[in-house]
Amino acid sequence: MVAMTRFDTATEVTPAGDGTYTADLDPGYLIGSAMNGGYLMAVLQRAALAESPHPHAVSSSFHFLRPGTAGPARVHTEVLKTGRTVATVRATAHQDAGPVVTGTIATARLDAGAAPAYEAPAPGIAPMAECRVYDPRAGAGAPDGFVHRVRQHYTPDTWDRLRGRAADPAPELLGHVELSPDDGGPCADPALFLPLAVDALPPVISVFDSWRWAPTVELTWHMRAVPVPGPLTFHARAGLVSDNWFDETVDLWDTKGRLVAQSRQLARAGR
Amino acid sequence: MVAMTRFDTATEVTPAGDGTYTADLDPGYLIGSAMNGGYLMAVLQRAALAESPHPHAVSSSFHFLRPGTAGPARVHTEVLKTGRTVATVRATAHQDAGPVVTGTIATARLDAGAAPAYEAPAPGIAPMAECRVYDPRAGAGAPDGFVHRVRQHYTPDTWDRLRGRAADPAPELLGHVELSPDDGGPCADPALFLPLAVDALPPVISVFDSWRWAPTVELTWHMRAVPVPGPLTFHARAGLVSDNWFDETVDLWDTKGRLVAQSRQLARAGR
Repeated sequence: MVAMTRFDTATEVTPAGDGTYTADLDPGYLIGSAMNGGYLMAVLQRAALAESPHPHAVSSSFHFLRPGTAGPARVHTEVLKTGRTVATVRATAHQDAGPVVTGTIATARLDAGAAPAYEAPAPGIAPMAECRVYDPRAGAGAPDGFVHRVRQHYTPDTWDRLRGRAADPAPELLGHVELSPDDGGPCADPALFLPLAVDALPPVISVFDSWRWAPTVELTWHMRAVPVPGPLTFHARAGLVSDNWFDETVDLWDTKGRLVAQSRQLARAGR
Repeated sequence: MVAMTRFDTATEVTPAGDGTYTADLDPGYLIGSAMNGGYLMAVLQRAALAESPHPHAVSSSFHFLRPGTAGPARVHTEVLKTGRTVATVRATAHQDAGPVVTGTIATARLDAGAAPAYEAPAPGIAPMAECRVYDPRAGAGAPDGFVHRVRQHYTPDTWDRLRGRAADPAPELLGHVELSPDDGGPCADPALFLPLAVDALPPVISVFDSWRWAPTVELTWHMRAVPVPGPLTFHARAGLVSDNWFDETVDLWDTKGRLVAQSRQLARAGR
């Protein structure tokens, strides 16, 4: 029996009939005045899985329509396809101002014992003991700030980059990420943390400048293996920053070294 | 005045009122008995752009629900957001069997003159003159087959891989892709070709085996710059093949060397 963590409680959805759910968005997951996108995706994932016969969100694409605020939200779901291998569910979060984020989520069952037939080489990433906890975002370190929800451990090189001390400010972040021990530690099902983990880091373009708001327009992530409990190792990088748009690609590995999630988002560079 | 190519005609949508469009899916874009996914995305993109005040599909995510067949289709659109910077449109193609593919498309206006603030190094790719035209897919080389729609020019190493002659069968394909001269050459607007180009190649896992069907479950692509007319240079690769799932990431550059599109799909490895 695993005790309920703040993450478990904060992402709960309650059925309200006809495929609709209610949620209460937890102000602890705010970045400034807007809900963290990863947290919103974790809430929508729970509603989508409740509507599916399959246990894993294998491919989830989200479009962010307006900032989410703390407090009540309604999640509307629609089952688009129910197949033996894949079932696809659309889930959209609404608040008083209108739709906040809409996700289309393909669900299936991954085999926890599967061995990769091919895997691209992973970058070398320093172990957590050599990393430093840090969060450059405004308010993140406040008494109930985001860093108390999700703890990010940066490798020494990455920490230098985020502090503006690197000779080479490449938009690349390496380290480890976990639900904070302040909130009770790991959640009941490690797979439910994945959508938050792929969008919990400060924008990768923070290495060029001090932190600034960078609204996500679209984020798609794929679950590739069933994670074992424990911190996740991350590799985040940008391919192109141009015309105030940038992409951010994030890979996550579990403590067994398995690639468990791949995400990519397109975002606006704030001013 | 640019003459209409087969691609221009084959991706046309006709307004039928209330945000609905009709289309006639061209059997020339079949792969075996199913419509090519890139072609379907190109059709949905035209309907989405017709509903948007902005000219470019900057971020488009598609879930493939069932195979498309040649012949009539209806496209239903829904405007999710109309902003000054971004407008988001959902477009779903329906045939008699039900919904075929649903896309959520964020539109905006990219600055054709923008210079990148940061760009990751691109791989070296042999020029088209050193490449070979090839398509391993069943029926692709037939008199009216897919290779007469989209011409793929593979680098010598890639050609060896696809022919099963490489010592290192890495799932990586390099080369150049263009609308075939057989169909009239480049289309009127090079940006409209991008969704077809990101999904026109044989599955990257074809290097491990002979070609086999690999249905796409989800594909998201981002338009990153306005392409100049001409062939596109591609780099396709997989990060993980496991449990009969694989990812395929494709980057495209125009003849000026600008990164114009980034895509990633999650697909099933056929049996």
